[in-house]
Amino acid sequence: MTQLTLDISMSLDGFVAGPNISHEQPLGENGELLHDWITRLASWRARHGQEGGETGPANDLVEEVARSIGAYIMGRRMFSGGAGPWADDPNADGWWGDEPPFRAPVYVLTHHEREPLVKQGTTFTFVSEGIESALQQAKAAAGERDVQLSGGADVVQQYLRAGLVDTLQIHVAPVLLGGGTSLFGELGASVALQPADATHLTLTPAR
Amino acid sequence: MTQLTLDISMSLDGFVAGPNISHEQPLGENGELLHDWITRLASWRARHGQEGGETGPANDLVEEVARSIGAYIMGRRMFSGGAGPWADDPNADGWWGDEPPFRAPVYVLTHHEREPLVKQGTTFTFVSEGIESALQQAKAAAGERDVQLSGGADVVQQYLRAGLVDTLQIHVAPVLLGGGTSLFGELGASVALQPADATHLTLTPAR
Repeated sequence: MTQLTLDISMSLDGFVAGPNISHEQPLGENGELLHDWITRLASWRARHGQEGGETGPANDLVEEVARSIGAYIMGRRMFSGGAGPWADDPNADGWWGDEPPFRAPVYVLTHHEREPLVKQGTTFTFVSEGIESALQQAKAAAGERDVQLSGGADVVQQYLRAGLVDTLQIHVAPVLLGGGTSLFGELGASVALQPADATHLTLTPAR
Repeated sequence: MTQLTLDISMSLDGFVAGPNISHEQPLGENGELLHDWITRLASWRARHGQEGGETGPANDLVEEVARSIGAYIMGRRMFSGGAGPWADDPNADGWWGDEPPFRAPVYVLTHHEREPLVKQGTTFTFVSEGIESALQQAKAAAGERDVQLSGGADVVQQYLRAGLVDTLQIHVAPVLLGGGTSLFGELGASVALQPADATHLTLTPAR
């Protein structure tokens, strides 16, 4: 059965974007460090039209995830950084370029209606009827495959609160951001997680 | 050479204690969930005079760490929860009972001088000359073994800022606290960490 899987990179201190987000710095201060681990991988690079890159278990994981996903859900801010009516959004075409890396239908949650946006290999459908409608549409589009919940934090928290997330795949980047957008915000123990085992990270400060 | 190793349990959202810390709830709301993973282990239980418990890789890790440590450093709040002059601290003897689990010298950072406190198997030495003095004393006491930095967050951040931590061993508990004491606070990217690889956590919401 089609699952809803959260797949997101988070700093060791719990943020998915650094402080002071702007159009020039959509991930906030040092936020791009969150994705260093993935942009080095061969599978990520190939999807973004770049050569080379590392292979190994992390690369295999990213490739396997990409293959398993039939549709994506994201928030308006992850799509374009904007808010409010689309006519007023200077980035209404989104961050994702003419050849977006998704290559599958993307459902964008927004409060403002809009016709679908067709890019090469990826169609963005704008959903203003709420998270359950977006999930329903994405599941129908995904067929046998899974739906990935890509972010940002606000949308992730809405889906977690509603009990609609089947799996959380969190990539903890060895990075401290010191502030910014908290992935889990004030959710707290209202969301209980399994398995009950801790994950043991061993890190050393770079000198 | 003797290393300074931070060893601490942190929630997935980055906290080492939950909101609303009190004498009755020294780890704040739901904070005790942070240590569920370790209190189930045979080696932890044996150290605390309890029988049974789980064996396996996590148990081996905890046992290995305990064997490698020759002295501990902790903050005043981790020792007793108090602040200010010792005469005014209703918990001046600390949380740790008559037979503390450390069984090695413990150096407690405090702004207020105090004679050592001798408990069965563990002597608490109070250091009011700052973090470097505590480290020097702990290293001397540890001999060939390592010094563990046990917490809390404030003391951890002081040692990280000073570049004195050799290794971070973070036990990420599958728990959300939604607020409380952030382990890394506002340190941010001033502390760079190695290795550069992300750690991939797969979790499912309990239903």
